Amino acid sequence: MQIPLLRDMRREGRPVYGQIADHIRREVEAGRIEPGDRLPPIRSLAEKLGVNRDTVSLAYENLANEGVVESTVGRGTFVRTALSRRNGHATAFAPPLTPVVERLLDFERARPEYDPASGAVPLHSLVPDPATYPLDAFRRTLNRVMTRDGADLLLYGPPQGHRGLREVLSNRFGAMGIDAGVDEIVLCQGASQGIALAMRLFAAPGDCVAVEEPTYHNVLAAMSGQGIHAAPVPMSGEGVDLDVLERTLKRPEVKAFYTIPTFHNPLGTSTRLEHRKALLDIAERCAKPVVEDAYEMDLRYLGRPVPSLAALDATGLVVQLFSFSKALFPGARVGSILARGRSVDALLALKHATDLGGPLALQAALADFVSNGDYDRHLVKLRKLLLVRRAAMLEALEREMPAGSRWSSPEGGYQVWVDLPEPLDSSALMAPAARAGVLFAPGYQFHHDGRPSGGLRLTMSMADEPAIRRGIAALGRAVRDALANGQYKSPPASVQV
Amino acid sequence: MQIPLLRDMRREGRPVYGQIADHIRREVEAGRIEPGDRLPPIRSLAEKLGVNRDTVSLAYENLANEGVVESTVGRGTFVRTALSRRNGHATAFAPPLTPVVERLLDFERARPEYDPASGAVPLHSLVPDPATYPLDAFRRTLNRVMTRDGADLLLYGPPQGHRGLREVLSNRFGAMGIDAGVDEIVLCQGASQGIALAMRLFAAPGDCVAVEEPTYHNVLAAMSGQGIHAAPVPMSGEGVDLDVLERTLKRPEVKAFYTIPTFHNPLGTSTRLEHRKALLDIAERCAKPVVEDAYEMDLRYLGRPVPSLAALDATGLVVQLFSFSKALFPGARVGSILARGRSVDALLALKHATDLGGPLALQAALADFVSNGDYDRHLVKLRKLLLVRRAAMLEALEREMPAGSRWSSPEGGYQVWVDLPEPLDSSALMAPAARAGVLFAPGYQFHHDGRPSGGLRLTMSMADEPAIRRGIAALGRAVRDALANGQYKSPPASVQV
Repeated sequence: MQIPLLRDMRREGRPVYGQIADHIRREVEAGRIEPGDRLPPIRSLAEKLGVNRDTVSLAYENLANEGVVESTVGRGTFVRTALSRRNGHATAFAPPLTPVVERLLDFERARPEYDPASGAVPLHSLVPDPATYPLDAFRRTLNRVMTRDGADLLLYGPPQGHRGLREVLSNRFGAMGIDAGVDEIVLCQGASQGIALAMRLFAAPGDCVAVEEPTYHNVLAAMSGQGIHAAPVPMSGEGVDLDVLERTLKRPEVKAFYTIPTFHNPLGTSTRLEHRKALLDIAERCAKPVVEDAYEMDLRYLGRPVPSLAALDATGLVVQLFSFSKALFPGARVGSILARGRSVDALLALKHATDLGGPLALQAALADFVSNGDYDRHLVKLRKLLLVRRAAMLEALEREMPAGSRWSSPEGGYQVWVDLPEPLDSSALMAPAARAGVLFAPGYQFHHDGRPSGGLRLTMSMADEPAIRRGIAALGRAVRDALANGQYKSPPASVQV
Repeated sequence: MQIPLLRDMRREGRPVYGQIADHIRREVEAGRIEPGDRLPPIRSLAEKLGVNRDTVSLAYENLANEGVVESTVGRGTFVRTALSRRNGHATAFAPPLTPVVERLLDFERARPEYDPASGAVPLHSLVPDPATYPLDAFRRTLNRVMTRDGADLLLYGPPQGHRGLREVLSNRFGAMGIDAGVDEIVLCQGASQGIALAMRLFAAPGDCVAVEEPTYHNVLAAMSGQGIHAAPVPMSGEGVDLDVLERTLKRPEVKAFYTIPTFHNPLGTSTRLEHRKALLDIAERCAKPVVEDAYEMDLRYLGRPVPSLAALDATGLVVQLFSFSKALFPGARVGSILARGRSVDALLALKHATDLGGPLALQAALADFVSNGDYDRHLVKLRKLLLVRRAAMLEALEREMPAGSRWSSPEGGYQVWVDLPEPLDSSALMAPAARAGVLFAPGYQFHHDGRPSGGLRLTMSMADEPAIRRGIAALGRAVRDALANGQYKSPPASVQV
């Protein structure tokens, strides 16, 4: 089989794995490789060509997805017979998806599955309780702004989003010590889209972004969807290990650091002022931007507020994400990105090239809802409710969990992280716990490589105090049973990011 | 200056341009290259390393964006002096943006700018007329569904979007001969997001997607934002040149074809059944998916409907985009993607990894608005209005434009394409036409490479008949003056995609 020299493939400028796949496909189409033939082993072809094994592996994956070849572990990669190829496609055309998308599908398949209909207490989900939504007040506000502002709200907005809401957020952030100009804020479709866009600013496919380990699992999905690799920095005590952070940010391929300093997801912890200052010093020394996810910034119910990284930032290296999804409700799909200088221009260009901005009507309604005090009144009630639920959860954990368990004591937000007694694996516990009557979020999904975890995340968003007590009691029973029966492990759910 | 062998850099697995930039930066930081020193010319370094010139060029661009080096055309690339670097950054940190984002910013800068406040007749914008929006009916519908469905509408929806709206669309598409299962439809933030997601399914950075030439300019932006190259296929007569299409789709690096067969943007033309069938045959022979943008599918006002590619598609190779933005109003930001099999799974995974879906409340309101007949009633009125405006525009063009001008006669939609008499350049005409009293969309932006164009797009969306007549009269005057004064050309606005 003839494959061009790497030097010539490099000159083409196209990804090399694609060219290798193209050439093999042509050999098959031309009959120079025949059905049933075995392709060279990945390692030997990589050596012959002078490329990474991953490059050959990707080429073979592409061909397998197209149905040209078939890979069997331990046997090798073979050209599919003409008949099996025809049957494999039948009358249906299955266009090849890109390797990044294939990896994202693997990631999707590795997400935990829940059966909320089982009647188990739902302590797994970080969706705020619909019973708390100020539905009527918001509906009336939306109706009012649409009557007042009319058809203007049904046009495309500027890619930056509704100016009134940006002004409101600018003032709110200012009151927290964050210098946020109206034109330094870009509205986006929840903090979720904020994460995806912020990543794209600084990291190209193949680059790395440093993340806390563990971290918010959907950040790992966002990175996977862009072909960006995660460089994990372990959490130790209150926040990331700063020495490891510095070593990581010094690596040239690491382009940014994504962090949740306040009410961490999944751990629930918050860092102190000294840690935040040291973190920013490190980022400045390494000249790397920091993406601060402040998605629960409005949900403090204990202790004193600590200035956010954005407030402490003297040089403009922090990009701060905000969202209404957890503090109010997710359904408006409104969040914001605060950035500086060219990063803002770049965000606008990305919005212009992807979705042309979000619905002005909902943004305008939120602007009114905040500026007339409804949002703050809602927050007062919500924080009171969460404080009560937190107490119920922590008391129940104290009461029910066997020795060797540890858990966090959040000062805000919905999440409580539980470390199970050694050597339990939280994934293995999911099914028995569901049967016992409780759902939780297993820890493996918050690790960049999906490694097995003895930890799990509980949330107080979807259950009231009696349900929380029932759920924790069920958790305690399941844990004690598992310890007694030696049911420690399940096969690791691994994801490749 | 020492740079590792390409073979070793390839083994690293990271993009080579990034590694070259890293090594040069380290040499500068270590003082082994000094301020004022000139870096090797791109061509000679590329030859030495055995890489593409583009690879070295990208490395130098990165370093220039970081302020490490400065490139001057005709002189070369020099390491900036310590002082100039310090001043360049001052107290502000400007994190380097990725090369794709830098290219997207270039693309943004090349967009035409309009001054609508000038009083000139706005024939440039493809935003439907707010005077036509059924604002009150929609507002009441939104209010009603929020009262009826309550807090459910303020939760996260499934990534696929509101089921009721998908059912409504499934029925509507079915009535047009398109076999669209409820779970084969994914709602998205306008067709704009549909384009971005569809591209990502099939084309990785560095891959090509075939596009009509000219085509919708924001598709070129979406591709630029993903590092996807455009492979242009010229429009000839009614649709793309099918021979060139076949040759283009045979190229392995071309992963898909984006097309607007009905009410083409910017040309306004529609293809006939025979052309569509032949196009699908070609796509099937070449085993390449087709992304059909049916964004104006509901705006036919003359002639007989021609089945869409999605309706004619026997093997599942068509991905069809739909939007409410042009037929109703943009402000709901609701469109849909119709896809098959694994492509749907992939789209859901992408939604899950980017924005977790759109606002259910607006989707639910649209579902009601369509199923109770309000949308169709709106369309009847809108089509009547557009037919009248079309007549006014075509009559005015006939009356006002000098010999050598040509224009399209659309059977639906808002766009009319005008080819100016040779050798006029439409960009050069923008300013004099604005002074004369009319705004239009210059043709260069619809070309994949931004080449100068003698064509321009008019729209009938934002002007009533008297305004249209005034505007076309102004256009005619401007054209005749330009011909008389020999004002043919302006410097080409070039964009690199």
